[in-house]
Amino acid sequence: MPLQISAYRLWNLSHGDFTQVSRGHLPFSCTMAGKSIQDLLTPAFIVDLEKVKKNAHVMLDRFQKLGVQLRPHMKTHKTLECADIMTAGTRRCIVVSTLAEAFFYADHGFDDILYAYPLPFDKVVRCAELSERLSLFHVLVDCSAALEELKKQPLTRGKNWHVWLKLDCDNGRAGVPHSAPAALHLAKAISETPGVELTGIYAHCGNTYGCSGEEQIKAVAQDTTTFTLQFMDKLKANGIHCSKSSIGSTPSCSHPVPDMALLSEVHPGNYVFYDVQQSMIGSCKLEDVAVRVLTRVIGHYPHRNQLLVDCGWTGLSLDSGGRLPTGYAVIEGHPDLKLLSMTQEHGRVEAISGRLDYEKFPLGSLLTLIPYHACATAAMHPVYFIHTDGVVVDTWTPTRGW
Amino acid sequence: MPLQISAYRLWNLSHGDFTQVSRGHLPFSCTMAGKSIQDLLTPAFIVDLEKVKKNAHVMLDRFQKLGVQLRPHMKTHKTLECADIMTAGTRRCIVVSTLAEAFFYADHGFDDILYAYPLPFDKVVRCAELSERLSLFHVLVDCSAALEELKKQPLTRGKNWHVWLKLDCDNGRAGVPHSAPAALHLAKAISETPGVELTGIYAHCGNTYGCSGEEQIKAVAQDTTTFTLQFMDKLKANGIHCSKSSIGSTPSCSHPVPDMALLSEVHPGNYVFYDVQQSMIGSCKLEDVAVRVLTRVIGHYPHRNQLLVDCGWTGLSLDSGGRLPTGYAVIEGHPDLKLLSMTQEHGRVEAISGRLDYEKFPLGSLLTLIPYHACATAAMHPVYFIHTDGVVVDTWTPTRGW
Repeated sequence: MPLQISAYRLWNLSHGDFTQVSRGHLPFSCTMAGKSIQDLLTPAFIVDLEKVKKNAHVMLDRFQKLGVQLRPHMKTHKTLECADIMTAGTRRCIVVSTLAEAFFYADHGFDDILYAYPLPFDKVVRCAELSERLSLFHVLVDCSAALEELKKQPLTRGKNWHVWLKLDCDNGRAGVPHSAPAALHLAKAISETPGVELTGIYAHCGNTYGCSGEEQIKAVAQDTTTFTLQFMDKLKANGIHCSKSSIGSTPSCSHPVPDMALLSEVHPGNYVFYDVQQSMIGSCKLEDVAVRVLTRVIGHYPHRNQLLVDCGWTGLSLDSGGRLPTGYAVIEGHPDLKLLSMTQEHGRVEAISGRLDYEKFPLGSLLTLIPYHACATAAMHPVYFIHTDGVVVDTWTPTRGW
Repeated sequence: MPLQISAYRLWNLSHGDFTQVSRGHLPFSCTMAGKSIQDLLTPAFIVDLEKVKKNAHVMLDRFQKLGVQLRPHMKTHKTLECADIMTAGTRRCIVVSTLAEAFFYADHGFDDILYAYPLPFDKVVRCAELSERLSLFHVLVDCSAALEELKKQPLTRGKNWHVWLKLDCDNGRAGVPHSAPAALHLAKAISETPGVELTGIYAHCGNTYGCSGEEQIKAVAQDTTTFTLQFMDKLKANGIHCSKSSIGSTPSCSHPVPDMALLSEVHPGNYVFYDVQQSMIGSCKLEDVAVRVLTRVIGHYPHRNQLLVDCGWTGLSLDSGGRLPTGYAVIEGHPDLKLLSMTQEHGRVEAISGRLDYEKFPLGSLLTLIPYHACATAAMHPVYFIHTDGVVVDTWTPTRGW
């Protein structure tokens, strides 16, 4: 298949094919397929296609068996190709974190898109446009002022706003606290507003990110599920119609509790890539992580027992703050190495103990970084290189912006 | 003038003009000029054009008076427009941090480009291409293995490789330690290699980033200058021809010591934007900082005395690690507020002490973040909104990738 690369100057291979794309040019096709990832110019974000497919399949299969709709989140990768894999080709029922993603997917035939972000007042007109254009475009509301904004912007063509109420089940970011009377009041107000439909209750159990191990993850998943289902019961008891409930986070959906079968939907996202953080939380094993950053040794500095690599924070992000025992990332196959610090385009690597054996790391040789946080690392890359067993089979271009 | 926006889906204004650009489309013109920055969708990276021009002019003027060539670094902004301002329209004599930047500028008529990065062995072929195409393309070398790579790739058309030797004047990143015998040996080897010319000696005084105040900055600037000039003398004493010397960093070039007049060139970059970090180091005053991130209040959470804004780490970066008294940024006009934490698209803001007065921060209202590190924040944005006195006058599109 032709490999589409847009919007960026790319040197795809160090020797041989050379594709350059600058602003104002149409996307080029390039002929990287069949080449080894070892020939990529670095730093390069590489994605193991078989692991992505496996991670996606496991999650789809898990929730199909539980009878719960999987609504995968797109924020980690923001590409069409990965969305196709996560939705098993249906191009339906996704979550996005930005309006840029929403339009990107809508423009490419996706539908039933939930913009899971507290309704931003500056973007209501754009949300209305998508609501009128798509069969199903959902927005999120966690306060009465947001509901007022929707009232000011009634939809045409006989359409209703599809609203999910964001419930804070002790995650402590957006949402109305699940036990606050305000939650029920807001649900009632939404359901009683002409032109607006209370479609669902949405909770993000981001507090699973503080967990260590399956037991702790399941405890948070259980709490979030219980609070959400209790709230659904409360709605019913108060005669408020609301058909859907959804909770999500990669840790909780990687280790669902039985009660999650009582939910309508779940909405994890990171699982398709996974990362070091997820392996530490206990969501996955390190070998499930589908992404890497390839970097090359660019300097030997024996006087300070360090080497430099060509990956700085533009290639990895500063996520983790360097607090891993191995610094900012895990260096695959070299548990004795630490990515100590990064500047914009340089990474300082040192031995965790003892002297570096420079003969093992010749100048120009490759090191492979397993990212601490795949969402943050992917966000730094204008293109992802997709491989199977180390052979490049495709490139994916994410959308960016808001 | 027409405003060019490429490669990204952009919603330029919340009401009115709506330009969408997706991959595969040619750049669109849009009609934002004359609109207020307050109408921009958020998060938005805004650049004060007059401050940029002033910062650029001050630096140009400063080194013109010292009789030293300013070779501005492009890594902070990576745009054509800002490069034009920094080079006073000459499009000559710049530094870049990636080969993507080098090609981007070369494609747009820039020349005399120094790729100030330890020669990456995977990119020698591309460097040769630029060396043959441009009047002057310079590479950086800090080890004999890199020189061997250049030998393997001789230039055609009677051209020589223009090589700068990177000297480490106690900065501790790339470079041969200035006092090591290896430095002189390498300089000699470069100068004696057919097809290769030792053009200059290059030192980055990144250790000025650990300074606090003008006195400390000047001490580092003096050391770096002294070590570099001593090395130049050593070259001369050993009969090694090398015409240029260059040191740089925004702190040292904002407070040059008199001896810097004896250098051929300086190569600062960040100064065109400046940022909170530079103001803390003492390079500038906070009012010199030309860039901001506009963000909007998207949630009130009085039960935990916080509000949410629509800027997460995709809009600001994680640079600073949140260690400022005001967290991850300075919130302009609100010294009592702290940007406590960020996730991908959310920022948690709290009062530094006492209760938040939510009436001062209505939902949908704007807050203005002064970035800790402008290079890191700019790197997160596909487009910059350029304004004069709060009125949008242009958009700049940076290059990305490597």
